[in-house]
Amino acid sequence: MSTMQAAVWLSPGRIEIQQRPIPEPGPTDAVLRVTTTTICGTDVHILKGEYPVKPGLIIGHEPVGVIAKLGNAVQGYQVGQRVIAGAITPCGQCHPCLDGITSQCGGKAMGGWQLGNTIDGCQAEYVLIPNAQANLTPVPDSLSDEQVLMCPDIMSTGFGGAESGGIRIGDTVVIFAQGPIGLCATAGAKLMGATRIIVVDGVGERLEIAKRLGADITINYRTQDPLEQIMAITAGKGVDVAIEALGTQQTFESCLRALKPGGTLSSLGVYSGKLSMPLDAIAAGLGDHKIITTLCPGGKERMRRLMEVVASGRVDLTAMVTHRFKLADIVAAYDLFSHQRDGVLKVAITP
Amino acid sequence: MSTMQAAVWLSPGRIEIQQRPIPEPGPTDAVLRVTTTTICGTDVHILKGEYPVKPGLIIGHEPVGVIAKLGNAVQGYQVGQRVIAGAITPCGQCHPCLDGITSQCGGKAMGGWQLGNTIDGCQAEYVLIPNAQANLTPVPDSLSDEQVLMCPDIMSTGFGGAESGGIRIGDTVVIFAQGPIGLCATAGAKLMGATRIIVVDGVGERLEIAKRLGADITINYRTQDPLEQIMAITAGKGVDVAIEALGTQQTFESCLRALKPGGTLSSLGVYSGKLSMPLDAIAAGLGDHKIITTLCPGGKERMRRLMEVVASGRVDLTAMVTHRFKLADIVAAYDLFSHQRDGVLKVAITP
Amino acid sequence: MSTMQAAVWLSPGRIEIQQRPIPEPGPTDAVLRVTTTTICGTDVHILKGEYPVKPGLIIGHEPVGVIAKLGNAVQGYQVGQRVIAGAITPCGQCHPCLDGITSQCGGKAMGGWQLGNTIDGCQAEYVLIPNAQANLTPVPDSLSDEQVLMCPDIMSTGFGGAESGGIRIGDTVVIFAQGPIGLCATAGAKLMGATRIIVVDGVGERLEIAKRLGADITINYRTQDPLEQIMAITAGKGVDVAIEALGTQQTFESCLRALKPGGTLSSLGVYSGKLSMPLDAIAAGLGDHKIITTLCPGGKERMRRLMEVVASGRVDLTAMVTHRFKLADIVAAYDLFSHQRDGVLKVAITP
Amino acid sequence: MSTMQAAVWLSPGRIEIQQRPIPEPGPTDAVLRVTTTTICGTDVHILKGEYPVKPGLIIGHEPVGVIAKLGNAVQGYQVGQRVIAGAITPCGQCHPCLDGITSQCGGKAMGGWQLGNTIDGCQAEYVLIPNAQANLTPVPDSLSDEQVLMCPDIMSTGFGGAESGGIRIGDTVVIFAQGPIGLCATAGAKLMGATRIIVVDGVGERLEIAKRLGADITINYRTQDPLEQIMAITAGKGVDVAIEALGTQQTFESCLRALKPGGTLSSLGVYSGKLSMPLDAIAAGLGDHKIITTLCPGGKERMRRLMEVVASGRVDLTAMVTHRFKLADIVAAYDLFSHQRDGVLKVAITP
Repeated sequence: MSTMQAAVWLSPGRIEIQQRPIPEPGPTDAVLRVTTTTICGTDVHILKGEYPVKPGLIIGHEPVGVIAKLGNAVQGYQVGQRVIAGAITPCGQCHPCLDGITSQCGGKAMGGWQLGNTIDGCQAEYVLIPNAQANLTPVPDSLSDEQVLMCPDIMSTGFGGAESGGIRIGDTVVIFAQGPIGLCATAGAKLMGATRIIVVDGVGERLEIAKRLGADITINYRTQDPLEQIMAITAGKGVDVAIEALGTQQTFESCLRALKPGGTLSSLGVYSGKLSMPLDAIAAGLGDHKIITTLCPGGKERMRRLMEVVASGRVDLTAMVTHRFKLADIVAAYDLFSHQRDGVLKVAITP
Repeated sequence: MSTMQAAVWLSPGRIEIQQRPIPEPGPTDAVLRVTTTTICGTDVHILKGEYPVKPGLIIGHEPVGVIAKLGNAVQGYQVGQRVIAGAITPCGQCHPCLDGITSQCGGKAMGGWQLGNTIDGCQAEYVLIPNAQANLTPVPDSLSDEQVLMCPDIMSTGFGGAESGGIRIGDTVVIFAQGPIGLCATAGAKLMGATRIIVVDGVGERLEIAKRLGADITINYRTQDPLEQIMAITAGKGVDVAIEALGTQQTFESCLRALKPGGTLSSLGVYSGKLSMPLDAIAAGLGDHKIITTLCPGGKERMRRLMEVVASGRVDLTAMVTHRFKLADIVAAYDLFSHQRDGVLKVAITP
Repeated sequence: MSTMQAAVWLSPGRIEIQQRPIPEPGPTDAVLRVTTTTICGTDVHILKGEYPVKPGLIIGHEPVGVIAKLGNAVQGYQVGQRVIAGAITPCGQCHPCLDGITSQCGGKAMGGWQLGNTIDGCQAEYVLIPNAQANLTPVPDSLSDEQVLMCPDIMSTGFGGAESGGIRIGDTVVIFAQGPIGLCATAGAKLMGATRIIVVDGVGERLEIAKRLGADITINYRTQDPLEQIMAITAGKGVDVAIEALGTQQTFESCLRALKPGGTLSSLGVYSGKLSMPLDAIAAGLGDHKIITTLCPGGKERMRRLMEVVASGRVDLTAMVTHRFKLADIVAAYDLFSHQRDGVLKVAITP
Repeated sequence: MSTMQAAVWLSPGRIEIQQRPIPEPGPTDAVLRVTTTTICGTDVHILKGEYPVKPGLIIGHEPVGVIAKLGNAVQGYQVGQRVIAGAITPCGQCHPCLDGITSQCGGKAMGGWQLGNTIDGCQAEYVLIPNAQANLTPVPDSLSDEQVLMCPDIMSTGFGGAESGGIRIGDTVVIFAQGPIGLCATAGAKLMGATRIIVVDGVGERLEIAKRLGADITINYRTQDPLEQIMAITAGKGVDVAIEALGTQQTFESCLRALKPGGTLSSLGVYSGKLSMPLDAIAAGLGDHKIITTLCPGGKERMRRLMEVVASGRVDLTAMVTHRFKLADIVAAYDLFSHQRDGVLKVAITP
């Protein structure tokens, strides 16, 4: 078999399954046979034409699979090994990577995000992984595909939000929005020692899951004023760290207003339109505030650590896979996921 | 003598010298006889009514003086000792101070800034210093009043901009605006090991002083496009750290646009009106950017370190004192300084 | 009543209950009526004459109590409030404190440790707390004395060991010795996101408690070779962080040998005799190892954070209080505790 | 020509020039034609048999050269380009590298040090550079070979000592030993903002060079007691950071004794024999001391930054090249260098 099924973006609103050639690896690449993948919120932006990619691109950036072919410069792996790769596939060898800024690999904004963005992605039967040496991570036998399916993107991103916030033991943290990434930020905040975790969302089910992942206090913004609640909870002091996990003016602004002087806004959202900074919320620039934006950290060491978290049982995200589809039915999966029907959080796609 | 001369803010545009009672210290306070002080850009905002203080307040927050009286709980100092105190006078004993957020003392925005803001300041013959134990710093005999006059505010603020930027050996840094604070940021950037320091201003004299303080490349925005130049200098990569030292939409935005992906904007300016965030400059939130705002660090350890810098000869800021006035003539000094006439950078005021 | 019962150290091996005057606070002090306190391993060193204090000193440094008297410069507290203070009572206002090195307050080694060391301690009916403004921390009504009894010393010390290790999400950590401090280090490692926590001790009961506090793998050194086990568990790689919680050559050395190249030894033990550094374990100085020693962090913000941990239910240390004594019977408590009889972990002492 | 001259280690005390095949690059390697190299203190340890390498190994790890051949997986370079590579050549793609521990590449102690250690080195006409993509760094045309000759090892190591010490603006720093690495640590300390730099050595000429590189105070241990001097200079407080640049019990111990409580010992030396830790100097483990060991950081981003330092003129190390030899005469160069005759600091070797 030299062709494969793949989900291809054609134009705004239009993704379809096509037959495509199975990729061939260059010397530093690997090709995986994809066993499980998923759809990300970013993929929905691509679908709608809100994030531009080249028509004809295979999309998807969260691969679990089996090594099918290895480039001749890739060492220490075997064909047949089950692995994951992160959504971000840094080379590890350019100046920014060696300076620790791996997500911005090559020095271009989002340079580390190649899969389903600048090269073909993994919503397909096979996917080429660039810089394989830095990115292939063997999956422990004890873990199922679905158990590690969140590692490549949303777990890495959500935990990254907690890490960039510099959360310390005893911190009070608020997370605005409890979609998949916000939920992972909640789990990450707990894992780092925050002792009062406040979460805000408008969907009761998500708030329930948040509780199981570590939230101490849930606020449904449809029935309560989040800032009023946060100030009541903190006796007017504000929170140490606020994590933005949606990407809107309102949640960004609420995060800033929720912060104590000297606090940190850790921003995960992808913003569109215009973003304005409320000056009263930052003491006109004199409040010692920090705003840190974070793109999903990648690379095989990151993936290894996240799988350690899963294997340790510290965090269990399997409840987040609410629906399952065959690759052939991915158009229906996009439809369900993009309209957030039926309580969907994440879908598992199997070729 | 139980009264003293003091510069009092009355209403927008109106400061005058009045006779006021010499303050009496409470148990944890000290009273200094001021020997030299200066006028800050913030004082000009107060003068104009742009930053609100209570009518009748004595203004000024940069004291050099001699201890006149000590509260009974203050230990280890003697009346007659020459000292400085920072513009920010943290207590060192509240929760935020003990958490390292001393400028936001008490947990209120700018809570550490009391002198000439929430209590009487030092443009007067005497000034009460609160939390004296944490704030009085003896001046080495070898240093003159004018040599340490920049320590309480602009040197601490400017260096703070470099420190918050996390400058490392070999960094490329741009500083937008070379007023007194921007010039100190330039000196701070050099002191921390930046090896390519680019500065932007519209006044040739200031760019000249910047060169003496460490700037490698100067850009006069009246004749050159700063972003074009910065991108040419960095071969399109952008800078590691951009320091905003003015407080306008344009400089803030230029800083963001000058940054490499993963870079840090260290913000010192006091913004007014509205501040908007250009989304293209931050990759819609996915560029791993950091925005850090910094209020002048205070406390006696900070002052000690800054005086060590002066004493070591590493940085010489005496050229920044361009004019000298008697306290009785401070209205004229405000007039000169606020209109930036005659190449003024900083004025020394002596009671 | 102007006198009180107090445990006084007289000479090696000899502590007795004496009548002493109730202390009077100076302007920056407070006097607490002690409601619960405990005995620390350090107190046993004092008892034996291994750590020198002045004969006649009241010992003890872990106070829970009620404010009885306040110095006139102390603000924001009321007589009758229930509070704790840390074992370390930094002033917050000296150069080292303002530089963040609060345990070494005043710049002298262990300068922040005053209670039961350089001034009278809290194994008494009343205790004077110096620098009260920086150290009194109200106890939430919802928490009992015993629930917060570990905060002043062992919880702060043990967590400090985890924090100084710089533990990150996904780390493998080993803790050598599971006495009270080692157990708290285990809890702290879990709280910071370590996902594989290995603990070593020779007492089965302690290993059992360690499991409840977060240990994933327990090693009884009486039946297993710890280093052999650690290398087997980590596939020969070594651990990211090793925490020394005993203070012997053997555990120090085992920590170094357990580390990966680039790993961190976080040292909590109090060493005696000689300590030697095995050069093969640190690649003769070329292994990028870090050795960080930590004295119990104090101050009211630290205590507040630790009580937040207790209140959140994240960590439950109440099982560590295994025995209870009246102050009058403290000699018997010392006897039990110093000989580690009857499975004792910590004793609660109530005046 | 298919063979080359190379300096080969044969047995303790014996290095000779032999004819060897010119190496051929694998897919991820490059081969450089060496234009300038030097001899390191470590090479002298190898010569003497104190550091074990395989007989027959070509030694040397500080290459300046021109790309002669490139592996087929190496991109973005051209044959003929003038480049350097660090003494440490990390792969950038293994777990430790992606975790930021590049010198311990592969997770083995000193794993990043391959040249002249585990593979043939650069005291030869040609040298194979492994992991070329992560290690080849173009030399700016404006810089001569000798100007960048210190970058691969001693400048990187010395600066690393300053960086690992966490030097901040206003710090007091002592550096024990002013050989080539100690001198670079002095330059690095100045570059990071230390304002009082004390250096200790027994050779007057070295102390003179130290002054030019940034030392404020020099102590000749042959005529003065260093610790007595340091305590006098710091008024008994001790230094913030002590850098060990020799590798002996005495200098290690003196560093610890020179530190303030809470201070950092940054260790660069290669120790032999036994190393013991004076307990009184570290308050028996309760002094909040840090001991950080550092192996020369490598990788092309590190090399780029160091060359920026040279290009900026901030640090001028050319005075350190005191002697020049042809490769054919390297045995004589070793003789001079290992006996420290004729005021030698570093020798330039040209094939």
